[in-house]
Amino acid sequence: MSTIESRLADMGITIPEPPAPVAAYVGHVVHNGIVTVSGQLPLAGGALSQTGLLGAGVSVEEGAAAAQVCAINILAQMKVACDGDMERIVRCIRLGGFVASTADFTDHPKVINGASEFIGTILGDKGVHARAAVGVAALPMNASVEVEATFAIS
Amino acid sequence: MSTIESRLADMGITIPEPPAPVAAYVGHVVHNGIVTVSGQLPLAGGALSQTGLLGAGVSVEEGAAAAQVCAINILAQMKVACDGDMERIVRCIRLGGFVASTADFTDHPKVINGASEFIGTILGDKGVHARAAVGVAALPMNASVEVEATFAIS
Amino acid sequence: MSTIESRLADMGITIPEPPAPVAAYVGHVVHNGIVTVSGQLPLAGGALSQTGLLGAGVSVEEGAAAAQVCAINILAQMKVACDGDMERIVRCIRLGGFVASTADFTDHPKVINGASEFIGTILGDKGVHARAAVGVAALPMNASVEVEATFAIS
Repeated sequence: MSTIESRLADMGITIPEPPAPVAAYVGHVVHNGIVTVSGQLPLAGGALSQTGLLGAGVSVEEGAAAAQVCAINILAQMKVACDGDMERIVRCIRLGGFVASTADFTDHPKVINGASEFIGTILGDKGVHARAAVGVAALPMNASVEVEATFAIS
Repeated sequence: MSTIESRLADMGITIPEPPAPVAAYVGHVVHNGIVTVSGQLPLAGGALSQTGLLGAGVSVEEGAAAAQVCAINILAQMKVACDGDMERIVRCIRLGGFVASTADFTDHPKVINGASEFIGTILGDKGVHARAAVGVAALPMNASVEVEATFAIS
Repeated sequence: MSTIESRLADMGITIPEPPAPVAAYVGHVVHNGIVTVSGQLPLAGGALSQTGLLGAGVSVEEGAAAAQVCAINILAQMKVACDGDMERIVRCIRLGGFVASTADFTDHPKVINGASEFIGTILGDKGVHARAAVGVAALPMNASVEVEATFAIS
């Protein structure tokens, strides 16, 4: 078992099959060793693990947990992008984190840390990335968080 | 007439001249075969085809139509980036879709499908892209939709 | 003194040390000559130079000034990415501008021009970039503006 797979196993996390492509877009595109991963929602077992706005009933802890689920779905896309061998990941370059929030919510970084820290834990040095975290008005399906990503692979 | 041009003609769509560069930024940048296209608004003939918020008077159908206009303007940038020969497009890598929406609107994907499906129809296999779709508080000039893009060209 | 450094000196601007890496993400990532700069807030001397929403008490001029501070922090990241020699900058490829705004604010481009015009002034031809500017619900720490960037370096 690879290092990345063993770290996931240590955390009791199984990387799911990513959802099938929808309409004219796909979960990721590979071009010249760069993987662009579509915005991932906190979908687990076909349903959203967290809906609603941060600042209006959803706590920072719940938001961070949702961001981790987004990151698990990012790794699910990466596993397919790497033909199953996630050791081909060279680097997580960037995460783009969108938090559905009210105008007076200000803890977006703590929410997106749920994704960043997970990627760092699983990928180690390869998981140290650039990031943007912003608060948006609303997200698809009333999701609380959406995270997109860019990776380099070999 | 190229395949891409003929598909546009079949749809009765003429790719406009893109708007002139404004201030210190431009409509697109080409670097190492990658074209980064600035966020495009639903401008047609110098005016916005759709203003206002999804969830407050603008329907999903109107939003999707506006997203298609954004995608036409993306292709207008691409035509210039390719010195007029859009067959040089290798791949649409990513669309970033921003939907001006209320906090309770949840159909952002259906809105941005107006851009994704158009790109897929015109570019075929080369048009299958990664995507993020989010709901923002407001957009320039009160536009309902803004779409940015990344392409690879030869 | 290099051209870029002398232009900064002419404007009386000192590029600060960038803030230390926080948690599992960093201020920038360099991969294959492309620098991805994390979303920068208008931090100056450890505090935000501007908080609050455009459209609710923050003027366009104040927003543009905050966007310039974000751009100074982007150059601070670039200076480190270039090991101190900003003449290694080949091109600013893209700025992504997020403006914390109310739903009826529509002048996001004028706000982000505070970053774009600064980058253009300092970098000249190398500073002409693609851009997206959108209005978001809220930003970290109640910042009025956040700007991320992509550069090519030699």
